[in-house]
Parts: sequence; C-alpha cells; structure tokens
Amino acid sequence: MATSLAKFGEVFPILVEDLKSICAEQDNLPDQVLQWFEKTLQYNVVGGKCNRGLSVVDTTQILLGRDLTSAEYFESATLGWMIELLQAMFLVLDDIMDGSTTRRGQPCWYRQPDVGMMAVNDAPMLESAIYLLLKKHFRAHPAYLDLVETFHEVAFQIEVGQTYDMLTERRQNLDEFDQARYDAIVTYKTAYYSFYLPVALALHYTGRGTPGNLQQAKEVLVAMGHYFQVQDDYLDNFADPAVLGKIGTDIPDGKCSWLVVQALKLCTDEQRAVLKTNYGRVAECDTKVCERRVKDLYADMGLDRVYYDEGLRKGVFTAFLEKIYGRKK
Amino acid sequence: MATSLAKFGEVFPILVEDLKSICAEQDNLPDQVLQWFEKTLQYNVVGGKCNRGLSVVDTTQILLGRDLTSAEYFESATLGWMIELLQAMFLVLDDIMDGSTTRRGQPCWYRQPDVGMMAVNDAPMLESAIYLLLKKHFRAHPAYLDLVETFHEVAFQIEVGQTYDMLTERRQNLDEFDQARYDAIVTYKTAYYSFYLPVALALHYTGRGTPGNLQQAKEVLVAMGHYFQVQDDYLDNFADPAVLGKIGTDIPDGKCSWLVVQALKLCTDEQRAVLKTNYGRVAECDTKVCERRVKDLYADMGLDRVYYDEGLRKGVFTAFLEKIYGRKK
Repeated sequence: MATSLAKFGEVFPILVEDLKSICAEQDNLPDQVLQWFEKTLQYNVVGGKCNRGLSVVDTTQILLGRDLTSAEYFESATLGWMIELLQAMFLVLDDIMDGSTTRRGQPCWYRQPDVGMMAVNDAPMLESAIYLLLKKHFRAHPAYLDLVETFHEVAFQIEVGQTYDMLTERRQNLDEFDQARYDAIVTYKTAYYSFYLPVALALHYTGRGTPGNLQQAKEVLVAMGHYFQVQDDYLDNFADPAVLGKIGTDIPDGKCSWLVVQALKLCTDEQRAVLKTNYGRVAECDTKVCERRVKDLYADMGLDRVYYDEGLRKGVFTAFLEKIYGRKK
Repeated sequence: MATSLAKFGEVFPILVEDLKSICAEQDNLPDQVLQWFEKTLQYNVVGGKCNRGLSVVDTTQILLGRDLTSAEYFESATLGWMIELLQAMFLVLDDIMDGSTTRRGQPCWYRQPDVGMMAVNDAPMLESAIYLLLKKHFRAHPAYLDLVETFHEVAFQIEVGQTYDMLTERRQNLDEFDQARYDAIVTYKTAYYSFYLPVALALHYTGRGTPGNLQQAKEVLVAMGHYFQVQDDYLDNFADPAVLGKIGTDIPDGKCSWLVVQALKLCTDEQRAVLKTNYGRVAECDTKVCERRVKDLYADMGLDRVYYDEGLRKGVFTAFLEKIYGRKK
C-alpha cells in the first residue's frame, strides 16, 4: 500500500531538528542564522504534493516486498525529503530566473520583502542540507558514497537542463524548437530527478544499486518522465483551467512545449508563419489575440488527436510492463 | 620553493577539457550547453591571484618535504583549482546579492547582457564542476570521501557566513556590531575556505588527514584567516588607494568591519552618536560628508595604533611558530 502524505510529512520536522542540532555542533554558529535557515526550510520545502519524495518510500517497500520497519520508513522518507530539498533549491532559483510571482499559492521566496536576493544564497543552503542529512543518517550505510554521488550527478543534470531551457527560451527561435531539443530539456530538467532519482535512491538504499539495475531503471524511468512532461504540456493548453487549477501560459511564455514542437513538424508554410508571428511575447501584437491564434491553430491541426495517438502508444507500453513483471520464465 | 601562478595556471585548461569530456559522455548533452558551461568557467574562475589554489600545491610540497612529481603537481593543483571553483561560485552569488558592478576589473558575470539571472544557475554549475573533477581524478584515492565531505562542509560554512553577513548588513544596527559577530562572520565567510581548506585538502591528499592534524590545522589557520581579514579591513580605510589598487567602501557600505567594531568598543557616548548618524548609507546625509566624519573619528581614536598592537601580537605568534617548527625534542 502506498504511503500517505500525512505520514511522510511527519518525518520532516525531525529532519529540521536534525539540521538544527548539526548547526548547533558548529563553533559559535549564530542563532540568527539558525532561525533564518529554519525559516528557509519551512517556506520552501513543505507545501508541495511530494510525489517524488513519496516515491522513494513506495519503491523501497516494493523492492523489499514487505511492510517497512519503522527505521526503514524513516530512512527511506529521509531520502525522499532530500529530493524535496533538491527540488526546493531549484524552484527558488527557477522563480528568480523566470521573474515569477507565486509558487504553490504563496509569493515566491525571493519576492518576500525580507528575502530578496538573499535567496541566491539560501538555495545552495537547501542543497547543503541534503549532504548534512546524508552524513548524519547514512554515513555507516554501505551505499553512502553512491547516495552522495547520485545527488551530485542529478543536481548537475538539472543544472544542464535549466541552462538549455533558458538558452532556448531567450533565443525564441522557432526554427530551433525541434524534437531533439525538446527531448533533451525534458530529460535533463525533469525526468532524471523526478523519475529516475527516487528509484535510484531506493535501489541504493536496499542494496540493489548494481550498474545493471540502475541502467535499466534509468532507461524506463527517463522515458516515463518524458511522457509525464508531454502530458503536462498537453494539459497546459487543452485542460479546463478549473480542473487543472491554473491557467496555462506556455504560449505567451514562448516555451519549447511538446505541442509547438508537434505543430512545427506538421504545419504548412502558412501555419508556420502564423506560429512565428504569434508564439511567445511578440511586441507588435496583443498577447491575448496572439495566444488565441495559436490555440485555434492547435485545434485546426488536431493536436489533441496527435497526443492521444502518443498516449495510446504509452498505454501499450504500460500493459507490456504489467505482463512481463514478475514472470518466472 | 613556492609554485608560480604561471605553472599553476597551465593546469586549468586541462581541467576544462576534462569537464567537457565528462559532459560529452552524458547522453545527448547539447553543444550549446557545453559552450555556455565553458564560457562560465573561463569568465569566472580565471583572473584572480589564486592564493588559495596555490596554497594547496605549496602545502603539499611542504608536507612531503620534497619536490613534487609531475603527477603530484597536477593532482594538488587540481585540488587547488577546486577551491577557485568554489570561490567563483560564491563570488557570482555575492555580486548579485550586493548589486555589484565590477569584479577583477571586468563586469560582474550577472551584469553581462546575455547572462543576467541565468547566473543563479551558473553558480551551482561551478560547484558541480568540483564534484565531477573529484570523481574523475580522485575516485581511487583513499581519501576520496574525505575530500568530498570537506567541500560539503566548507561550502556550508561559507553559506552560513554569507547569511550572517547579509542579515547584519541589512539591519544596519550598530548596537549589534560587536566582536563576537565580527569573529563569526569572518570565520565562516572567509577563514575556513581561504585558510583551512587548502591545508585540509593537502593533508587528505598526502594521507595525513587524521582528526588530530585537521583539528590543529583548523585552530591555527582559522586564527590566521581572522588576522588576514582584520588586515583587509584596516587597509580598506588606512591604505593609500594608489597602493591598494581600489578605493575602500566599507564605511558607506555599512560593513561590520574590524575598525567600526573597535571604534564602538572604545568610543565615548558622543563618538557613538557620530558613528550612528554617519556610518552606512544614511538617507539624510551626503555620503562623502558622512564618510569623512567617520574617517576623522577613526583617526582621532588612533585606530591605526590599535591595529598595530594587534599586529604585534600576531608577530609574536609567527615567531613562536617558527621556533617550534621542526624541533626534535
């Protein structure tokens, strides 16, 4: 049975206390810093859906094939919270790069009046918390070094993804929005840390982190992460905002979204011209009008059907996985 | 004989090539990202005096008591460049937090028109380079894990120092500028990474990183780092700008400098009032006039003599060290 967010959430305050006591062991670490660190942790790490963190616990349970002891629950949840810490670091920075206003229904951290550009130092502090906690709770674990290196590896992959995404967005050159670019951004920016990382941590934690297992997990999970992002991009335009809980902004933002990549593959010369003059923030055009033109074009081109064709293929893949799972011959 | 900056500098291009080939091993890492990463490295890591990096090579030579083989030179210089990478990361972020304009005689990285807030992602990439290089060159070294943990530890200490420095600067409350606060900021923000880190790396590299050696090194070197910063603060006000190569700005910046801390210790109530109304950016006063008043006060109080008294004490300490170094009984 999958773990609940409520139970998972109970572990976080323990980790905050751990971090505070690690800090207290440092020579003369000032109280004001300790309070600031705690405030940064509470504001930025808590409040999401924690899908990535929860996955570490669930995967550990699946790998062990039984209920977890309370020590195993705590340890796998601790690894899960480390993914949430890593994500928090990148969300803080992402919001600064994008000039965003809100995140999870509250002002972005750097928009808080007493934070501002101190946020650029708080982000690496959130990352440091990962290594402080790894050292405290996993130093004696046989896979300690693997866990450390896995976080180094995945942090670098997110940084690569952010760089490519930013370079792409800035250039706003639709001729460059091809499938290869889309695939690389999604893989580096999202798929590794959201899909591969939880399973890689659970494999290392349970002593199953062989090169073969990790490679196989990476191949399947990066593909799943890709599909997750395609869904996300599809919903940004086609979902009912009331159901989605937000209004999609990929078109005015000029994102290298799966939809525009498909549109650019299938379009006539005329349709390409419409995209070029209306996609992204175009100075000489009212944003709402531009967005409407692109939305109409997507509808005319039947991109929802293109998506469902892709979806069908993934359905086949899932069914296939179910069939091969657990077979003995 | 101490190594030269020229010889040390020859190692950096090799490390850049290493990082590029590590990136090339990643699946489909885009060329544009590779080029951006290289540009970030060249702009931000090269061009300083490299005192910290050079110290790793010199300390390694002193510890081994002989000339280094070319492999030892390369490896110790590689560790030295990792300190330069760590520093580069924090300088990029520091400039953003301080809203600075220039660094090492060129525009700050985030002020480059094609960089801007992408810099907040480039900084962690510079840090990631440390762990990529450690893995490539030191994975088989017996102290690999110690080297990794030393960088984690020191990065966190710098983050703590930055936080305390920023909180102090923002509050601009002279009643809080006491010696304990000064000592904590200097220790965390500067002394650990500038003085302790080079020696800690050389100790681990030469197989001498015992808890006792590390602790002893930390005590002495953090004290030296403290003295270095006191010097720096003294020179900011008392040195001839033509000799110093820059014009000090600690007074208008409202820095928690060693000088103001001493002044606040020694002042009369009247002098304290002068400091309170003139130190830092004071809205109701012309900056130049305010600065002049504080400078005159420092002169009246004889802070240069207070400094030389401190300097004398350190001289005694150095002579003492020279005497006990190498004794056989």
